[in-house]
Amino acid sequence: MNFTYKDAVYPYDSWKVRENSYDVSKNFQDETIFSTGNGYMGMRGSFEEGYFGPDDSSFNATYINGFYDEYKISYPEDGYGFARVGQAMLNVPDAKIIIPVINGYEFSMFAGRIQSYERLLDMRGGFLERRVLWESPIGDLVEIHIKRLVSFKRPHIAVVACTVTPLNNDVDLEFIVRINGAVQNTSTADDMRVGSGLKGRTMSTVRYGIWKDGGWIEQRTLNSSLSLLCAVRNDMNFEADMEGCFYEDILENRVSIRTEKGKGYMLTKYITYYTSLDEKRDSLKGLAESELRQAMEDGLSVIEREQKELLDEFWYSADIIIEGDEAIQQGIRFSMFSLLQSAGRDDRTNIAAKGLTGEGYGGHYFWDSDIYIFPFFLYTNPAQAKLFLKFRYNLLDAARERAADLGHKGALYPWRTINGPECSAYFPAGTAQYHIDADVAYTVKSYVDATDDKQFLCDMGAEIIFETARFWVSLGDFIPTKGNKFCINCVTGPDEYTALVDNNAYTNYMARMNLAYAVSAAAWMREERPDEYKALKGKIGLKEEEVDLWQKAAEEMYLPSDESGIIPQDDSFLYKKRIEADEIKNELPLLLHRHYLDIYRYQLCKQPDVLLMMFMLNEYFTESEVRKNYDYYAPITTHDSSLSPSIFSIMAKESGYMDEAYDFLKYSVRMDLDDVNGNTKDGIHAANMGGAWMALVMGAGGLRIYNDGPHFAPVMYKDWHRLCFKVRYRGRLIMVDVYRDCTKYTLVEGMPLEVYHHGEKFMLDLDIDVIKKGFGC
Amino acid sequence: MNFTYKDAVYPYDSWKVRENSYDVSKNFQDETIFSTGNGYMGMRGSFEEGYFGPDDSSFNATYINGFYDEYKISYPEDGYGFARVGQAMLNVPDAKIIIPVINGYEFSMFAGRIQSYERLLDMRGGFLERRVLWESPIGDLVEIHIKRLVSFKRPHIAVVACTVTPLNNDVDLEFIVRINGAVQNTSTADDMRVGSGLKGRTMSTVRYGIWKDGGWIEQRTLNSSLSLLCAVRNDMNFEADMEGCFYEDILENRVSIRTEKGKGYMLTKYITYYTSLDEKRDSLKGLAESELRQAMEDGLSVIEREQKELLDEFWYSADIIIEGDEAIQQGIRFSMFSLLQSAGRDDRTNIAAKGLTGEGYGGHYFWDSDIYIFPFFLYTNPAQAKLFLKFRYNLLDAARERAADLGHKGALYPWRTINGPECSAYFPAGTAQYHIDADVAYTVKSYVDATDDKQFLCDMGAEIIFETARFWVSLGDFIPTKGNKFCINCVTGPDEYTALVDNNAYTNYMARMNLAYAVSAAAWMREERPDEYKALKGKIGLKEEEVDLWQKAAEEMYLPSDESGIIPQDDSFLYKKRIEADEIKNELPLLLHRHYLDIYRYQLCKQPDVLLMMFMLNEYFTESEVRKNYDYYAPITTHDSSLSPSIFSIMAKESGYMDEAYDFLKYSVRMDLDDVNGNTKDGIHAANMGGAWMALVMGAGGLRIYNDGPHFAPVMYKDWHRLCFKVRYRGRLIMVDVYRDCTKYTLVEGMPLEVYHHGEKFMLDLDIDVIKKGFGC
Repeated sequence: MNFTYKDAVYPYDSWKVRENSYDVSKNFQDETIFSTGNGYMGMRGSFEEGYFGPDDSSFNATYINGFYDEYKISYPEDGYGFARVGQAMLNVPDAKIIIPVINGYEFSMFAGRIQSYERLLDMRGGFLERRVLWESPIGDLVEIHIKRLVSFKRPHIAVVACTVTPLNNDVDLEFIVRINGAVQNTSTADDMRVGSGLKGRTMSTVRYGIWKDGGWIEQRTLNSSLSLLCAVRNDMNFEADMEGCFYEDILENRVSIRTEKGKGYMLTKYITYYTSLDEKRDSLKGLAESELRQAMEDGLSVIEREQKELLDEFWYSADIIIEGDEAIQQGIRFSMFSLLQSAGRDDRTNIAAKGLTGEGYGGHYFWDSDIYIFPFFLYTNPAQAKLFLKFRYNLLDAARERAADLGHKGALYPWRTINGPECSAYFPAGTAQYHIDADVAYTVKSYVDATDDKQFLCDMGAEIIFETARFWVSLGDFIPTKGNKFCINCVTGPDEYTALVDNNAYTNYMARMNLAYAVSAAAWMREERPDEYKALKGKIGLKEEEVDLWQKAAEEMYLPSDESGIIPQDDSFLYKKRIEADEIKNELPLLLHRHYLDIYRYQLCKQPDVLLMMFMLNEYFTESEVRKNYDYYAPITTHDSSLSPSIFSIMAKESGYMDEAYDFLKYSVRMDLDDVNGNTKDGIHAANMGGAWMALVMGAGGLRIYNDGPHFAPVMYKDWHRLCFKVRYRGRLIMVDVYRDCTKYTLVEGMPLEVYHHGEKFMLDLDIDVIKKGFGC
Repeated sequence: MNFTYKDAVYPYDSWKVRENSYDVSKNFQDETIFSTGNGYMGMRGSFEEGYFGPDDSSFNATYINGFYDEYKISYPEDGYGFARVGQAMLNVPDAKIIIPVINGYEFSMFAGRIQSYERLLDMRGGFLERRVLWESPIGDLVEIHIKRLVSFKRPHIAVVACTVTPLNNDVDLEFIVRINGAVQNTSTADDMRVGSGLKGRTMSTVRYGIWKDGGWIEQRTLNSSLSLLCAVRNDMNFEADMEGCFYEDILENRVSIRTEKGKGYMLTKYITYYTSLDEKRDSLKGLAESELRQAMEDGLSVIEREQKELLDEFWYSADIIIEGDEAIQQGIRFSMFSLLQSAGRDDRTNIAAKGLTGEGYGGHYFWDSDIYIFPFFLYTNPAQAKLFLKFRYNLLDAARERAADLGHKGALYPWRTINGPECSAYFPAGTAQYHIDADVAYTVKSYVDATDDKQFLCDMGAEIIFETARFWVSLGDFIPTKGNKFCINCVTGPDEYTALVDNNAYTNYMARMNLAYAVSAAAWMREERPDEYKALKGKIGLKEEEVDLWQKAAEEMYLPSDESGIIPQDDSFLYKKRIEADEIKNELPLLLHRHYLDIYRYQLCKQPDVLLMMFMLNEYFTESEVRKNYDYYAPITTHDSSLSPSIFSIMAKESGYMDEAYDFLKYSVRMDLDDVNGNTKDGIHAANMGGAWMALVMGAGGLRIYNDGPHFAPVMYKDWHRLCFKVRYRGRLIMVDVYRDCTKYTLVEGMPLEVYHHGEKFMLDLDIDVIKKGFGC
């Protein structure tokens, strides 16, 4: 592996991300790292008072999950069935602006003199805090303390509290607070990882109002005709009248006071956002008013307490303790905290590729959510996982339409979308990634396996599985020259360094899983839930012959193999020139240095494909098969995708390569905090954060759910002396506490059950810890 | 084959295309068919007085070969090395406008009453003629006769002569003549076969002048900064003063006279175009003036005589006589005449996909010219063929740049271009068609074989061949898992129904030809032209090790094969589902009805690929091998490309299927005249017209040039009782005159030589006809 550790950008701290000095050269990254969000909205960590650093070193933005504008996708050479509509998550009006003015001088990190500075993101308290000792250009010394909180409990509420304490003089203090509605998305599309197809302003103000302590703006999107209402109210711990005005899409309030030295003057800004995706447009203003009224009545301290309580609950299930490794300890908590900040809390939003911290990839939802992020929630917060499944269920009609557009039966989920349509404008790495269907089916199966929530299967899951199974048999064919095996040709697998190949191993294995699960789900429903089965069959016009065909296709699925034991990534893969990742390490990211053609023609992988499949369908492969394939694919994988290191960590561990497993784990866990890939500025790598969790719990911890229950196979890396994590499974909460010489299993909640420790079965009961000696490797 | 004969749209006539009534429903097609051009400029057959029929039934245009504007190609998802610059041949100012006005009523095919009508394109005289007996809305009866000629001898000159003869009344006659500079290209890009990336007006008038008998307009292109000057002068056979004016980019002259019944009033409009691609911008006006002065001094009759003389010379070598088949007779002459009208007469222009009759495919030059059109000129007019080679030589620097852009050595010719840059915005069917390099090399080899012009080889040909050979060894690799054979992966062959495949048979066989020819050319130069070889090596930095590598790659080239004798189109082809063309005949053109993905995954061909290769490299294959592959590929070929039927005709003949060979020949020869594909309106199918010639001379006539000289294998189709064609070969002109019971070979010009009749060698000498009995099948 080519990963070289980067030094910690922020000092290790088990529950915080902090910095004690401000370095403008990493401002762009800081804005991502210090983002605050609650799954509904997200604010980049940009300064409340504005930014005056060099060009291209900042992007201040606020996002609302799933709130988008759309645009027509234009192709220089068009083609049938190409995606027509682009969608992009919008940068919405910036409501966090507070500018303290000291004797006429606006506070800024770029004026006067910073005598001391601290910023921190508190992952237990759920807030961002900045403390600056600032000397103004004329020598007034003030302490400025700003706290920002986006409420998990009140999805529509954010609060920014700014306290100014004059230290050496009595000063004239003014607070300028604004909602800046004149915002827009970044418009570069040169690097598809950054921009979207939106150009210029896509929202216009349709109404606004000024209140005595704040005001509101209502804007409407250009093409998607969605409305957004942003309102603020300001509370002060001093008596003064506020004035308001509106100009050029900016709503501004000002308040002034003559201060006394040594006393803290605090302005608390309560912010709310509502959109027409939440409620009818006419009701937005009323909702905002009532939301703000309640928040102000309760006050910041109540909201802070709620935040802490909710996070306590979150960490109770989710927390992972690693002793002996500060880097991993901090990184994994930051990963989980970021996922929590990103996860849509309703059934129409999900987790965008960069969460709510950046607009890369258009704020689209990819398979990332299903395969990389879903497991974290599934095993720590199944109710949240279920919301993701409902999200997919709600896209089923659009997926059916897409399949029909392409001449297929069943449903084809979009490669990337916000609310349904396929938004991928490069089909060889978009539409051709049909595996998305199996990925969604896999989440259904994983969810039902892990929760035993059969009602969900009847209500929604089966319909997803049946429609995707239908799609597979419509896509593939029994090919005479392949011994009449069921082949799926002209697809792109997870590895985007090859495209339009035949019989991609990941795709075929996963399609088989999808088909087989559809057959067994149909059999179960036929037997156990005949009425619901009949209703579903009626709804989707399903015939039993179709189920028979699914079974035949599953049984006869062509599974690429090679006499050497290598699973070929696809039919052509082994017949290409092999390039070791080391040879081209100076060309990464490869897509910015080579034409697709000159990437596709080699045995060279961006990310795991066969290995990902071997992880996901682990029960079908022996350790030696895994190791053989690991040895084959590892040297030709560039990890040019952030989806790569986590899975490699798991598969290195499965192959018995502990040091490599640890290196990949660290790469994954520290990716954004240490800006390992150099692009954290554009937003977090949300999928990798889910991957980091998997690399710990499913890699180091060895968690797998097989038919006979949960399996663990914990190991310890490097100097660790403790690894402790919890897993929810069918109503239980299981704690696994690994030490260098033993592993302690505790059933924290739920009924007794059998679990496996490195293959050895034992019974776990409440209040009886089971201690297993050694950790088996 | 699914081809159903269409009825003749225009009556069969061996030397003319004509119509005796005007049918507005085929106006769009008429405009293409009645186009006049000379390789420098081309005018669609639109009416001089304007068109007032239904919407979308006309596109009036004038083109200048290679005169283009460019535009930035924008991709919704960009990629490294994607083509950046689009180019499109421009619709230039329309100078042919003449509107006769009779007693205040403008003549129009859509006003008054047409009492009689005739239009004809004379392929011996080289002009377009229309004769209308027109009764004006108020009952004035006039004969209107319009002759249009675009001079082959004077590339910058066109003449339109309009004669009005009042028949029942003395009338006030006015002629309005115009240059309309307010023109633009069609801008639809929905069907890539029609539009270009240009939007709206792309030329603006920078200067103009009004003369007493005409005037001129100079325009400049928006992005390519090219200048064009269009000038006209009008000559009348009556005394009257002309007035001129200029408004809204239109230059207008008017002249009036009180006529006498029965007398013909003729206005002759001399038109010239010059562009800054011809000469410096400042000299264009002077050139235009002098060109027009000369043309007017000489007069129309001299220009007509020149036209006839030049065509006599053309037909002397090129004509093909078919007795017993009026359809083929007319069609093949129309094909050859159209190619002559389309062929650039300099070394910087070539033949666009639709000649100068339409702007489909942006007026780009494709491999069509090299593989489908070049042979016609090579064997009838080698000097013209040499111009095409010089054109390719002149693009060599751009091709070297393109190869370097893509990280390769040598030169990669653009898939489509006007003057060098790759303009294909869909790389899987553009850049991936690397075979273009071998196609160009093939023309060099064919030219040297057919002319023995070794000096060309030294001056230009070798450099082309060496740089393309270099490219191939840079593109392909010796692959261990393929027995260390030289493989070329991730390419698209001629058949665009598959893309990004490994070891496309056409590509590998042709690359082998290219490499082997480079090796032998190097060996010959090393021996025979050491100084020139040394100079060339110095110029392009060639090392002998490179030549050794070419030889090794040629010798070890992986040539796809199958034990059944089928040559697989590529490594994956035989493992896809086979779809017979009949099954999807209602979905053609398939690209408008299916996603690329749902085309690429089948055994289904748009056009010959293996079969084209077997035709081009015929010497390597036996008749039974050809037949076996014909039988395999014919049923799965849709002929959704106009490049298909001609080659199928040849290969059907090679396979002994004479009826099918004839059917395909007819499809090809009548494609545009009978609008077989329903899109002649957009312009002729130039490549198919070259294909039609090949289907006759290389199909029915069996012409091949092997190492031992010209081979013929003539057959007769259907009710033919004579097929006579001529072929130029190394200074000779050979006439082959085929009858049902014998073939007469005549050496019309040049030194004696050995030729082959159905494999039987004989000597051909001047004035001694050789008669071979039978025609061998």
